Amino acid sequence: MSCPATIKQILRDHKDGMAMPREMYTSREVYDHDIASFWNRSWIWVGHICQLPEPGDYFLFDYGPESIIIVRDREGEIRAHLNVCRHRGSRVCVEQSGRARAFVCPYHAWTFELSGELRAGRAMGPDFDPGDYGLFPAQVRIFEGLIFVCASTDAPEIDAGLAQLAKLTAPFELANMKIAHQANYPVPANWKLAQENYLECYHCAPAHLDYARSHSLKNPADVEALMPALLDRAEAVGLPRETMSISSYEGGPVGADVYYRRYPLFEGYQTGSKSGAPLAPPLGRLTGHDGGATDIQVGLINFFLVYADHLVGYRFVPRGLQETDIQVVWMVRGDAEEGRDYDIDDLTWLWHVTTLDDERIIRHNQDGVNSHFFRPGPLAEMEWGIRHFYNGYLRMIGADRG
Amino acid sequence: MSCPATIKQILRDHKDGMAMPREMYTSREVYDHDIASFWNRSWIWVGHICQLPEPGDYFLFDYGPESIIIVRDREGEIRAHLNVCRHRGSRVCVEQSGRARAFVCPYHAWTFELSGELRAGRAMGPDFDPGDYGLFPAQVRIFEGLIFVCASTDAPEIDAGLAQLAKLTAPFELANMKIAHQANYPVPANWKLAQENYLECYHCAPAHLDYARSHSLKNPADVEALMPALLDRAEAVGLPRETMSISSYEGGPVGADVYYRRYPLFEGYQTGSKSGAPLAPPLGRLTGHDGGATDIQVGLINFFLVYADHLVGYRFVPRGLQETDIQVVWMVRGDAEEGRDYDIDDLTWLWHVTTLDDERIIRHNQDGVNSHFFRPGPLAEMEWGIRHFYNGYLRMIGADRG
Amino acid sequence: MSCPATIKQILRDHKDGMAMPREMYTSREVYDHDIASFWNRSWIWVGHICQLPEPGDYFLFDYGPESIIIVRDREGEIRAHLNVCRHRGSRVCVEQSGRARAFVCPYHAWTFELSGELRAGRAMGPDFDPGDYGLFPAQVRIFEGLIFVCASTDAPEIDAGLAQLAKLTAPFELANMKIAHQANYPVPANWKLAQENYLECYHCAPAHLDYARSHSLKNPADVEALMPALLDRAEAVGLPRETMSISSYEGGPVGADVYYRRYPLFEGYQTGSKSGAPLAPPLGRLTGHDGGATDIQVGLINFFLVYADHLVGYRFVPRGLQETDIQVVWMVRGDAEEGRDYDIDDLTWLWHVTTLDDERIIRHNQDGVNSHFFRPGPLAEMEWGIRHFYNGYLRMIGADRG
Repeated sequence: MSCPATIKQILRDHKDGMAMPREMYTSREVYDHDIASFWNRSWIWVGHICQLPEPGDYFLFDYGPESIIIVRDREGEIRAHLNVCRHRGSRVCVEQSGRARAFVCPYHAWTFELSGELRAGRAMGPDFDPGDYGLFPAQVRIFEGLIFVCASTDAPEIDAGLAQLAKLTAPFELANMKIAHQANYPVPANWKLAQENYLECYHCAPAHLDYARSHSLKNPADVEALMPALLDRAEAVGLPRETMSISSYEGGPVGADVYYRRYPLFEGYQTGSKSGAPLAPPLGRLTGHDGGATDIQVGLINFFLVYADHLVGYRFVPRGLQETDIQVVWMVRGDAEEGRDYDIDDLTWLWHVTTLDDERIIRHNQDGVNSHFFRPGPLAEMEWGIRHFYNGYLRMIGADRG
Repeated sequence: MSCPATIKQILRDHKDGMAMPREMYTSREVYDHDIASFWNRSWIWVGHICQLPEPGDYFLFDYGPESIIIVRDREGEIRAHLNVCRHRGSRVCVEQSGRARAFVCPYHAWTFELSGELRAGRAMGPDFDPGDYGLFPAQVRIFEGLIFVCASTDAPEIDAGLAQLAKLTAPFELANMKIAHQANYPVPANWKLAQENYLECYHCAPAHLDYARSHSLKNPADVEALMPALLDRAEAVGLPRETMSISSYEGGPVGADVYYRRYPLFEGYQTGSKSGAPLAPPLGRLTGHDGGATDIQVGLINFFLVYADHLVGYRFVPRGLQETDIQVVWMVRGDAEEGRDYDIDDLTWLWHVTTLDDERIIRHNQDGVNSHFFRPGPLAEMEWGIRHFYNGYLRMIGADRG
Repeated sequence: MSCPATIKQILRDHKDGMAMPREMYTSREVYDHDIASFWNRSWIWVGHICQLPEPGDYFLFDYGPESIIIVRDREGEIRAHLNVCRHRGSRVCVEQSGRARAFVCPYHAWTFELSGELRAGRAMGPDFDPGDYGLFPAQVRIFEGLIFVCASTDAPEIDAGLAQLAKLTAPFELANMKIAHQANYPVPANWKLAQENYLECYHCAPAHLDYARSHSLKNPADVEALMPALLDRAEAVGLPRETMSISSYEGGPVGADVYYRRYPLFEGYQTGSKSGAPLAPPLGRLTGHDGGATDIQVGLINFFLVYADHLVGYRFVPRGLQETDIQVVWMVRGDAEEGRDYDIDDLTWLWHVTTLDDERIIRHNQDGVNSHFFRPGPLAEMEWGIRHFYNGYLRMIGADRG
């Protein structure tokens, strides 16, 4: 997708290893181009197959001005459609989730099959061919039960990376999970500042006391020191020793980053809990708790942190130029029962308090970036994830530095 | 008025018979041009002479960033002035209605006669000529007691059409009416989507159950079948059999559309009431209820639905790019008394519930139109009113397809 | 600073002696340019040394998207820094005021000395030189205890003017004051309309009944008649008879206006109080109340009204295109005690009610200026202050009429 000259001009002095310029976070034109060129062409994690057990079950996923219907069709296949009537543009589906036999537009009752086809255009005359006016399809990938969609037809080629990832995640049996809790943390900042915050642990030590107490990632030396013992313990409970990283920064396909790495918790912590004690039964075919956490990234904007007993998924959903929803999803194994096997308050404690910290941090970051005096500074080595993100992002929006 | 190149570019692929492109409803430049080129040069229905019985009586009508003072002057004539001080631009009149001897600007007390002339410019020095600084006049037309204004000096030539309309509306004696109730329904959508919703009854069957139960317009075949009997009944109570339609789409002058057509209610409905029973005494010189409703349009943005016993007026007033007030006015004959001759809840029931439906529909329409994936679809035959509106609108904004 | 062509085009027909065009108050581009070219290069009154008694004491001053830290450093010097981290742009200081040993960025803990120097960049690698990444400094001037800052390095040359002013204000001993009360009056208008309102007393008679009852400024003839007696009384209590005015309109340096003039209250008023009675002990070395008030202006946007017993400071702080905070600060002599020497309600009464009037007036002014029909009218002789402001403002933004 071609990048407007004004945006290329904003980026004229940007160099690898430096933060991006102010206008990338303050310009409405950049925001609109982010939606059109980046979000609408990215793989987005929208949910899990456990949300759609039966044909006709659907839910909506909204971002920026877009809305996508994710539905299990009559044949049992999961499909996705742009939630925009092909007549005069009304939202076709207005409930956030439910079970439907067809989607009837609330305006003029144009009726779409679960497959997206237009059943008929009422009173549209003899020349009208319903075959021309089905809902626009979005692409769908199911990865171990996790549902990803891409609104555009030219989705990034991520299948090879996912196949490689599947070998590493197999022991977790991600398809056999349930959603224990979801929470939404609105932050008055551009989505990229929210996402950048997730992409580095340089801020973990000063900003996240609770996380830093239990997780070694805030200190690369600690990670290195504790890693051999962790890998032994991980292997003992059934997890692989391998890591993987595909990134356009390292020559991978654009928009198809895949990352997997397990890192150690400190002694006494078996999972991301306040006390260190387990929070739920081990996932999949794991035989116990190893005191580690796996960072998984799929594409450029989907993040999963997988402990031995639960998964925390993260999304940074744009709502406006400086309005973003941080969406956090906690998942446990599918047969776990609340009250018996896990407690919601205990399960969600760490990433609830950590996300509240981040909300504050990101807000102050946007406040400062809004200043005419902001000059992008150098990234620390620990902020390598931001460099990778910038590379993929700039290439997606058509502004890569060549 | 010349149309900016950016707007012409938005419309480059638009064809007659199709919905308009997304940016016509999402671009601030389009909105500003809508106000300057369309609203400021259109005839707007602002009220009724019953609101201004005495010299000095005034009310304001506001839309977009504009405000107009409508006032009966000392000679008894109804005049309209732009509510902008000629000094440094303050609103001159800040009360929504009242009785005034003159308009004294609340900032520096520049004092304007009811006729708009500046009485004197206090301490403005010897070279200052108050004759140069009267309030800018708006054009005024009184049609059967209904007050129309146009802020610009080059108002559409609507007099011939109104003269023709007057012959058809004479039996209603519209000048002899009073306002029974007014209501405002804000909707987070561009004014054009709100207006388009009023311009077609293709959505009436699926979206308006109460209206569809009593009114035939949702089904052209029903209208045709019931029309002969209605026309006989209408004639019997004193109404004409004729219809009229002047539209720029059919070669009429731009911005001067005039439309009149009576259509049938279903059996058992004498007026637009819940039970079908009359709601008020017959209007004007009508001798009874005929079970019909007259659709009247004056210019491009003023709508009246006239039953045998009441009138419902509609306006779709822009407040911002995606903020519109749907204003509904219920009128009955001038000598009707609330409590004795009509009940407000009964009178307003149908168009209150119908407008609440429309608010929801229009909101969902804007949500979908905001999507980058919205592609304008084909209009149904029943949406002919939208084609006519587009024609007049596009010519007013200087973007007609030639 | 160069002025965008679009803004020069807006001003193409503007003439000295006339109000400015609509778009100067409605265009986002103008607003952004106002911050970058005018506010960021202007001297801004931010506070008084009484707010920073000890090393490490600081407070923030925010305007538009900017934030400035004003702090007393370890050597006792008052300094100002841009509140933007040189790493990825976070606000460095997030409390409005306090006492600090250093400023630790809440994001990644980059730590800045009170002097603005970066102590160290944690984990930034061997090539990183902290000397390159100190906080950007803002310029500081202390005038008789009043603190002025300028965010830009090329601040207007105001020292000569201030030296001249100091001779006239010496008897007030402005450095020996304390803040009795501060209040914030948000107004939905462009900051220039709020400031213009302060710059003229043409509106005082019609709009400010309480002020007009006691202050002669609303009527130039009254000022002239009462002035000789006032000057005698002023001299008797220790005040000078002189006035001074430096203005770019009269050939002075741009952005460095300085103005001093005492004017008479009406008989029976010793100060700006409801009853006319004194409100507090005489300022500095004044020996009594003379029934006058001094208008002081420093730069283009800082205003002080000094009675014999208190000072009222005014700022019109931009928050958005049509969002402004009118900030009012009441000061009394430093050793005055609330309850014993002054009463807050009495002290603040006049400028509280007057500012409430102004909030309403300014709001109506913006409403009218938003109209497409607003045409700038001629300024009255009494509005000379606006002419001076326009001159300085237009030259600061690079759009002076040559």
